[in-house]
Amino acid sequence: MIGKIHKQMSHDSWLFSKMATPEYTPFVFLLLLFQSSVWGVPVCQTPQESPTCGYKSCHATKPGMLNVHLVPHTHDDVGWLKTVDQYFYGDRNDIQHAGVQYILDSVVDQLLKNPDRRFIYVETAFFYRWWKQQTDDMQNTVKQLVNEGRLEFVNGGWCMSDEATTHYSAVIDQMTMGLRFLNDTFGHCGRPRVAWHIDPFGHAREHASMFAQMGYDGFFFGRLDYQDRNRRMVAREQEMLWRASESLTPPMADLFTGILPNGYNPPEGFCWDQSCDDPPIRDDPDLEDYNVDDVVTRFLHIAHGQALVYKTNHIIMTMGSDFQYENANLWYKNLDKLIRYVNQMQSNGSEVNVLYSTPSCYLQELHRANLTWPLKGDDFFPYADSAHDFWTGYFTSRPALKRYERISNSYLQTCKQLEVLGGPISRKGPFGAGDSETLKKAMAVAQHHDAVSGTEKQHVANDYARKLANGWAHCQVLVSNTLSSLSGSSAPRVYCEHLNISVCPLTETSKKFSVNVYNPLARPVSWPVRLPVNGTAYSISDAKGKAVDSQVVPVSQATAAVRQGRGYAVNELLFQVQAPPLGYSTYSVSLLQNGPPSPPSPLPRFLRVTFDPETGLLSSLSNLETQQTVKLSQNFYWYNASDGNNSESIQMSGAYIFRPNTSTPFIISKTAKIETLQNSVVQEVRQWFSPWVSQVVRLYTDSRALELEWTVGPVPIGDDLGKEVISRLDSSINSSGVFYTDSNGREVLQRRKDYRPTWNLRQSEPIAGNYYPINSRAYIKDDKDQLTVVTDRSQGGGSIQDGSLEIMLHRRLLYDDVRGVGEPLNETSDIYPEGLVVRGRHLLSLSPPATAADTHRPLAQEVVLQPLITFTDGELHPSTRLEFSGLQAVLPPAVHLLTVSQWDQDTVLLRLEHQYQASEITHTLLSLGGDPSVWEVNLKPMEIRTFLLRVRQR
Amino acid sequence: MIGKIHKQMSHDSWLFSKMATPEYTPFVFLLLLFQSSVWGVPVCQTPQESPTCGYKSCHATKPGMLNVHLVPHTHDDVGWLKTVDQYFYGDRNDIQHAGVQYILDSVVDQLLKNPDRRFIYVETAFFYRWWKQQTDDMQNTVKQLVNEGRLEFVNGGWCMSDEATTHYSAVIDQMTMGLRFLNDTFGHCGRPRVAWHIDPFGHAREHASMFAQMGYDGFFFGRLDYQDRNRRMVAREQEMLWRASESLTPPMADLFTGILPNGYNPPEGFCWDQSCDDPPIRDDPDLEDYNVDDVVTRFLHIAHGQALVYKTNHIIMTMGSDFQYENANLWYKNLDKLIRYVNQMQSNGSEVNVLYSTPSCYLQELHRANLTWPLKGDDFFPYADSAHDFWTGYFTSRPALKRYERISNSYLQTCKQLEVLGGPISRKGPFGAGDSETLKKAMAVAQHHDAVSGTEKQHVANDYARKLANGWAHCQVLVSNTLSSLSGSSAPRVYCEHLNISVCPLTETSKKFSVNVYNPLARPVSWPVRLPVNGTAYSISDAKGKAVDSQVVPVSQATAAVRQGRGYAVNELLFQVQAPPLGYSTYSVSLLQNGPPSPPSPLPRFLRVTFDPETGLLSSLSNLETQQTVKLSQNFYWYNASDGNNSESIQMSGAYIFRPNTSTPFIISKTAKIETLQNSVVQEVRQWFSPWVSQVVRLYTDSRALELEWTVGPVPIGDDLGKEVISRLDSSINSSGVFYTDSNGREVLQRRKDYRPTWNLRQSEPIAGNYYPINSRAYIKDDKDQLTVVTDRSQGGGSIQDGSLEIMLHRRLLYDDVRGVGEPLNETSDIYPEGLVVRGRHLLSLSPPATAADTHRPLAQEVVLQPLITFTDGELHPSTRLEFSGLQAVLPPAVHLLTVSQWDQDTVLLRLEHQYQASEITHTLLSLGGDPSVWEVNLKPMEIRTFLLRVRQR
Repeated sequence: MIGKIHKQMSHDSWLFSKMATPEYTPFVFLLLLFQSSVWGVPVCQTPQESPTCGYKSCHATKPGMLNVHLVPHTHDDVGWLKTVDQYFYGDRNDIQHAGVQYILDSVVDQLLKNPDRRFIYVETAFFYRWWKQQTDDMQNTVKQLVNEGRLEFVNGGWCMSDEATTHYSAVIDQMTMGLRFLNDTFGHCGRPRVAWHIDPFGHAREHASMFAQMGYDGFFFGRLDYQDRNRRMVAREQEMLWRASESLTPPMADLFTGILPNGYNPPEGFCWDQSCDDPPIRDDPDLEDYNVDDVVTRFLHIAHGQALVYKTNHIIMTMGSDFQYENANLWYKNLDKLIRYVNQMQSNGSEVNVLYSTPSCYLQELHRANLTWPLKGDDFFPYADSAHDFWTGYFTSRPALKRYERISNSYLQTCKQLEVLGGPISRKGPFGAGDSETLKKAMAVAQHHDAVSGTEKQHVANDYARKLANGWAHCQVLVSNTLSSLSGSSAPRVYCEHLNISVCPLTETSKKFSVNVYNPLARPVSWPVRLPVNGTAYSISDAKGKAVDSQVVPVSQATAAVRQGRGYAVNELLFQVQAPPLGYSTYSVSLLQNGPPSPPSPLPRFLRVTFDPETGLLSSLSNLETQQTVKLSQNFYWYNASDGNNSESIQMSGAYIFRPNTSTPFIISKTAKIETLQNSVVQEVRQWFSPWVSQVVRLYTDSRALELEWTVGPVPIGDDLGKEVISRLDSSINSSGVFYTDSNGREVLQRRKDYRPTWNLRQSEPIAGNYYPINSRAYIKDDKDQLTVVTDRSQGGGSIQDGSLEIMLHRRLLYDDVRGVGEPLNETSDIYPEGLVVRGRHLLSLSPPATAADTHRPLAQEVVLQPLITFTDGELHPSTRLEFSGLQAVLPPAVHLLTVSQWDQDTVLLRLEHQYQASEITHTLLSLGGDPSVWEVNLKPMEIRTFLLRVRQR
Repeated sequence: MIGKIHKQMSHDSWLFSKMATPEYTPFVFLLLLFQSSVWGVPVCQTPQESPTCGYKSCHATKPGMLNVHLVPHTHDDVGWLKTVDQYFYGDRNDIQHAGVQYILDSVVDQLLKNPDRRFIYVETAFFYRWWKQQTDDMQNTVKQLVNEGRLEFVNGGWCMSDEATTHYSAVIDQMTMGLRFLNDTFGHCGRPRVAWHIDPFGHAREHASMFAQMGYDGFFFGRLDYQDRNRRMVAREQEMLWRASESLTPPMADLFTGILPNGYNPPEGFCWDQSCDDPPIRDDPDLEDYNVDDVVTRFLHIAHGQALVYKTNHIIMTMGSDFQYENANLWYKNLDKLIRYVNQMQSNGSEVNVLYSTPSCYLQELHRANLTWPLKGDDFFPYADSAHDFWTGYFTSRPALKRYERISNSYLQTCKQLEVLGGPISRKGPFGAGDSETLKKAMAVAQHHDAVSGTEKQHVANDYARKLANGWAHCQVLVSNTLSSLSGSSAPRVYCEHLNISVCPLTETSKKFSVNVYNPLARPVSWPVRLPVNGTAYSISDAKGKAVDSQVVPVSQATAAVRQGRGYAVNELLFQVQAPPLGYSTYSVSLLQNGPPSPPSPLPRFLRVTFDPETGLLSSLSNLETQQTVKLSQNFYWYNASDGNNSESIQMSGAYIFRPNTSTPFIISKTAKIETLQNSVVQEVRQWFSPWVSQVVRLYTDSRALELEWTVGPVPIGDDLGKEVISRLDSSINSSGVFYTDSNGREVLQRRKDYRPTWNLRQSEPIAGNYYPINSRAYIKDDKDQLTVVTDRSQGGGSIQDGSLEIMLHRRLLYDDVRGVGEPLNETSDIYPEGLVVRGRHLLSLSPPATAADTHRPLAQEVVLQPLITFTDGELHPSTRLEFSGLQAVLPPAVHLLTVSQWDQDTVLLRLEHQYQASEITHTLLSLGGDPSVWEVNLKPMEIRTFLLRVRQR
């Protein structure tokens, strides 16, 4: 378990060896691999090196002394208690005093006053807003500061993303947006060398893997399990090498990782921000309370103490915190004095040397120390800051926002693809001006660790949703323009965003309409479509004019209850659609007058499900292809959220923290009332558990997954009990205390009950302490059977008993959990004054463990990148192109087309990904031949490669 | 009641006519009249005029429009919730966020960013601290800002003095210290042109008179009675000419006076300080919540509304408040935008023009308007901000601090005189390094409107006292050095600061010691000395060796109780001393072994007092010279302080506010236990009213005043009732609802019950609404008799019934009065854990009204400038000079030597004052012939003239 930083210094300033490989140019930090394009034109020159920025700009240290690196910094949440724009402008200071525009104003002013001073800035979402309001003079001044290494960007993404509830594709997008802005604006010297996730509540291995692949030289964070920290402090293992992938060949996913000494705060007594009350340095002997001696003594004491728990004679101190440096003078004036007075003591024999520094300068000194660091292979979940304070509630908090974020990602990928496929007309076409930028930015801020995490105030959550909706609106224009261009039809295009609750005014009323299904995947998909209708029979034809089997079924009672007057369809029209890769297909739908419903004609399917007739619950699941069967029941329960007994010393459940009052969840109903429904397209069992919990178990023809569409809410709180609702699967699988969860939707980690791989866990919360984030899937298995659940959003879950897998669906809480948000997680709105109703899907598959990924990998992709369905009313013009594909050939099954996006006028960004782990496949190297060209791409398991393609408009 | 600003513009930038008289050079603002010194050397050249500062630096306005003068400013209390040094450094921000060092840092930075910006600064105590920490570069930058009028000093005293509880001599001193610093540092452009008392709680006419005489062009304040303000708003009389003296010939004490529109705060919704929550201007249309239109509309609405209650097409808005501008960027960034966007509306027909301005630029426009202003002759006391919220409690709050401040002033004047008389040896002599600077600065900050006013937190009050005590210590070294030099004896000199409670270790134990009595007045004084001793008989000889009559009397029980172990004298030695003007006399005291006490030998006295044998209370007072007698009783009472009924809507008594629960005070005891004592030096009646109230009524031989030495405390609060203790005199004088109080120790104003001279009062507080500040004296009179009380400190008082005069002595309260101080006025300390005991003196005189001033003017002076008594143990060396006078001749009775102070190495500051009002004397012009020179000084009643004398060391 011992690793070593690779020490070869590349040309002048790159720390770690992988940087030196010719494959990675400096631009690799954008996750872009610049290669000659297929037309042979180099797309990027190597940027000019500035002689003074980067590692060269670091202040000298004193080898024989304890060197204390003071790192002035601010942590600017891209939304939390206030919206991102409120934070930027300093609006609503009654909620929280914070104004980022002023922070940047002030820091620049103060950096100019003393060339020794340093500052790091993190969140490009804010920096970008500020930058575009500055004069040319100010922009040049800032460039100079950056070129001299006095202002250094760290992390540099659009935001500091959450690690537990984000999907890797959205994280890569937001990092790309931030880093691209820095590169475009500052060139080489704007390049962040260090990843900096000081606040997220636990750390995902996939994030470290991505950071490593992006070319960061190191990673620093502040929060980890208190037991883990304590052990690492004693063992001096707070700095380590994180080997962040089991698939990628080291050092591809190796990342030096450091734990900061005080979270991200200054040491106690040394906070000189306007938001702090610590005594300033009073160094005028003519005034009262001269305190220089006291300050120096206290500082030396802290520095020596900190040096005891780190390995080198360099230590780092984060001098800043949330939204600090709005008046940077307070900080710098006192830091200048601190440095002067502490270093003055060297003439009296002190061996402590204090300096302004940055994380990368600190990292450089660690590198020079030439030590061997402990190796880390797992992740940092779950995060507990005390025995009963597990931050595992936010894995599920705000499930509707989490879902909206996830489908917004799908929509954004589609939008970006259609921007490329449509060309300039997509942005300015028959339907007006459209763009993908708005949704890109909305999605980028939604990745923030108080956004999709669900840990923001309600009004801020509303703002994220509003921003996403605005992004959708802009994309819809773009999509309409492109589809109009590709299809040759400028018929008005209708979007129905509430199909999940069977609301679509067009299909509810129209007698003739067409359905366009766009598939953002690089392989053809087949997909069941459910449209709200009021007719009883429809005829459907596909793009080739062929009739398509369809069924009309009644809308469920649960759906009718949920939509609350927003739709009046009594039936749903079901049919299966097919769409080509990166393309669309069009289906025409016509109402049949009193046509007879198709007779139920059950076809052979891939799965079989049985239900217990006594309880109405699932009783078994069989894979008919592999001939395997497991006993499987499923039901809904709720944990009684701890209310803290009205005492501040007892932790309550809240937006962040999950703390059930007892370890045994309460069952909502032992039995379900059921209705069954069976036809050529689908088999459904509709289960009703209570007025606020229902479910439809669906098995579509052609599907290898069983769909459990759950509907939960409004969670009742009339009993004054906060509730955390789970769906629990109980199976005959002999899982032996182990289950598996994905990391940010990519590689899967093993989880073992009451166990952590890197320290001897003293388990203090039998439920919450065994919860982990599930971003896209979780599974349990034994030698024979693997039961995999693919989720449609991030959720928390655990396996408390062998064979059991529980996933938290919804939470409604009556108390704040005292981590700052200051609100109970009690989602109500004008539309749902009684409390939020949430609907979602779990897709279950049963496979032999060795081949399970063949099902769950593509399945999860189809959930992440779902087809976009649009409608046009009436008859289509005969010249309309009913089918289109942007790909000349289908990509191999292992290759996922992660991103297709317009980069600039002539350039398209392309990301290709090997979507399997090494353990999930037999052949690990995958070659992708370019056609018609000499271009060949090699992808190893879990590798992501990025290309900029120079595109000529045809 | 109509006055007019005198409009002649003097040379280039002086507004008002009196400035143009040759007698007033630009230096008059220091209250210094620069004349050729007696040695014929001019002491000051006329400073060079900068072409851009002052009125010339004002921004242009638009004649046809409503011009809104935005005045960025900060109000920096020189102590209040924190000490002055805590405020300077920004220490103890847990109490209140405030750091003046950062304010000045930040404002200078921000002024440099845009030459249009303006800022005014007020409190030189803070500016001085900041200035001396700056580099030469920064000092030059600031000089440039001042020279260009971008940074303008207003008021400019060391602090913004309280107006109700300060003595004019200390106010002049503190103004001199601040203005001198500005003049020395910045020259002409540092000169404040307006007085700026935006926060004091009511306004004294004497302050306006002083400001007028100092050469200020105008005066602005924020607080006045709510009824007064309402009437003035309707009548557009918020701007006026204050004729601030009944004695000085107009326009000598005329001062343009303006009432600011929002106290000193910005209009509602426009506070952009870091301490405020108002929405910033969000002018980026790409971000959410663009609000420029809303801000402009709201601003125009407010501006038009304000214009309705002022006379010209210019209005002023104070954009700042307490300790604001610590991060000036927030203010200026938004003000820049406000000005830009509001003025942009002019192209759409708006007739509002906004500009950065200063009070003097605003004043210049009022001057140019050439209007006639209403005339004001009385003052602005008492101040009520609502019907039951009279700020008349602070007239008495912290009576011990008020007394300590007053005797510190006396001590400082003595110290300054002895610095001049001793020459350089005073500052560095046989007793070490002494100075008057420390006490000067301590006294200057003690004048602040939350210092001597008693409205600061307890720990801050302690700090003021500590600073004064430190000043005393520095002065004591100086005094010892000078007295050693003048007397030729370097015997150790002992100071006894607790003679008022009969504590002095030297006199208590020594068998032989000498007493040096220094007299700071310019006329000889006779003074009773009381020394704590343990012997029973002493022989005393004066400087000429002549025996002095003395008496030994027992220490009173009240005194023994109060001193609580700090002294053990059983007796007091009484004798009368004489001291020459500006000089000292020395008395030798020797213990007589068992010598018989002197027989009581009553001598004829000037007064006669009778007591009611039934009650032990005073019953009459007679002036034996004028043969007049009044019935006079006196007793102690307490008002039950309103506790607000635990409701926030009901005002309670507190540090600021006096609100008795009922209008009838509770009597402490109807009868007093008495002891009498009578000898050749004094007659005493010792009255005991309760365990916490006692009094000694004393009549000294040779005294024209009856001394009532009261001792009050600890005020009991075991009954949970806050108490406001008064001494009330009830006489047979037919005062007809009228009484008189002095203003800052100088001119006297008539007060009429339930009446205000300038509006029809609706009286809502029959007691508190009839209270006025008494700084040095109050009196009632009828045609025949005037009963005058001279106080030893500032106190509040009233005449609720005819013939009655009550003075509040002490207050102990259980609730905060919600004006910010956040503490109940409940003075306890380690020494007095049960509550503070306060002792003081009222000196009563009875005279015919026409000649009463002949008694009370010199009497009050003797209280304000009391002799300094020092001791040396043992026998003095025979060569010791036992008597000294610094004056060659006694000054005429009407002339008061207000100040003698070393100005610089060669120069002495001299202030002479006519101490009578015009109505108090018959001949109004007084000539003072210089000897041996051609110098002659003319003084008119109440005139103060200032000289700098070039002094040659002999």
